[in-house]
Amino acid sequence: MSVELGDVGGLSIGILGGTGDQGKGLARRFALAGHQVLIGSRDATRAQEAADGLGAGLPVRGAENARVATEADVVIVAVPWDGHRSILESLVSELAGKIVIDCVNPLGFDKQGAYALDVEEGSAALQAAAVLTGSRVVAAFHHVSAVLLLDPEVAEIDLDVLVLGDDREATDIVRALASRIPGARGIYGGRLRNARQVEAFTANLISINRRYKAHAGLRVTDV
Amino acid sequence: MSVELGDVGGLSIGILGGTGDQGKGLARRFALAGHQVLIGSRDATRAQEAADGLGAGLPVRGAENARVATEADVVIVAVPWDGHRSILESLVSELAGKIVIDCVNPLGFDKQGAYALDVEEGSAALQAAAVLTGSRVVAAFHHVSAVLLLDPEVAEIDLDVLVLGDDREATDIVRALASRIPGARGIYGGRLRNARQVEAFTANLISINRRYKAHAGLRVTDV
Repeated sequence: MSVELGDVGGLSIGILGGTGDQGKGLARRFALAGHQVLIGSRDATRAQEAADGLGAGLPVRGAENARVATEADVVIVAVPWDGHRSILESLVSELAGKIVIDCVNPLGFDKQGAYALDVEEGSAALQAAAVLTGSRVVAAFHHVSAVLLLDPEVAEIDLDVLVLGDDREATDIVRALASRIPGARGIYGGRLRNARQVEAFTANLISINRRYKAHAGLRVTDV
Repeated sequence: MSVELGDVGGLSIGILGGTGDQGKGLARRFALAGHQVLIGSRDATRAQEAADGLGAGLPVRGAENARVATEADVVIVAVPWDGHRSILESLVSELAGKIVIDCVNPLGFDKQGAYALDVEEGSAALQAAAVLTGSRVVAAFHHVSAVLLLDPEVAEIDLDVLVLGDDREATDIVRALASRIPGARGIYGGRLRNARQVEAFTANLISINRRYKAHAGLRVTDV
């Protein structure tokens, strides 16, 4: 893919696991920014219901995950962690050659709150890269609050989206996509081997949200 | 210790490994804020030289680590990672009952930059808590740039200091101490078990600094 940064507005965006809050929230914001969005689910009917639920007039459709993976220019993986590996293994050929954005946070929860789970490959992003050997895997959108993404009263999201990956062009494109969400800014956040701590930091944001009754995000200073 | 948050200005601060840039930078800022500061080193002479090097008129002295651990009200651990466990094991009794602030980042470096090291206990902070069973271990000050701390041209540090720990009063005191550095703000960042990703995120900041030629820090939004 040879996409100029200025061209990202024309990219269609597929969201695997798009019926969850994070997926629906990203779908809504990218559709509002003018992107064709495809919400994916195992069940095409549920996917279409999620698309319809985002409101009339938005360029969002629902379809089975495999069809979304085939049709979309860029694919976001927003499935629950426990289905992460299996869904990616089922879509290796559909996702070949594409930019695949993993935003999954492997977290556990107990009465003390959230904590990071150990992942054999080191992180969800590294697991995706290990499974999708023909794709251009980028990690991003871990920290953005689904509540804010879905809230019609929230016009701008006060957040830097950390974008990690080993493919410079792919991370540049995803940074440009992140910046299409009003208020948000895509910032390069390091190589894929350093995605684990970005995923895990979502546990800290959950603690911060609980303590301060907030929807906290991060901004990177001096950049 | 029963310190009111408003009282933290009277606390003396010891810095183990205070002859490194991070230690000296924190020493300088806390001394400028009016705290009595004790720089610790294995070698008392080197410690005093580091104190003298911060400039005349600041309330900073140097001493051996053991003396610093004994005399200071609050002790910051700013030693290199490879000396972390051994120095703490040598100071268990001196540090008993005290708030001990661990700011150590277990990182490795190769030609692709920085990466997080695996730590048997899970993180430097958890290692400190495992060794210092009688101390009140808090994790903080991982991301603050030594360059900015030491730069006389930099009046304010644009940064939130994430403060992690399981002892509410101790984290409140350390948050108040962090906020004594002009521009900085101490924010509760979660329990000690979630310190690993905060330590490891320093590797990402190093990547960000390289990409953007910056001294990047974090701000937490909506808090």
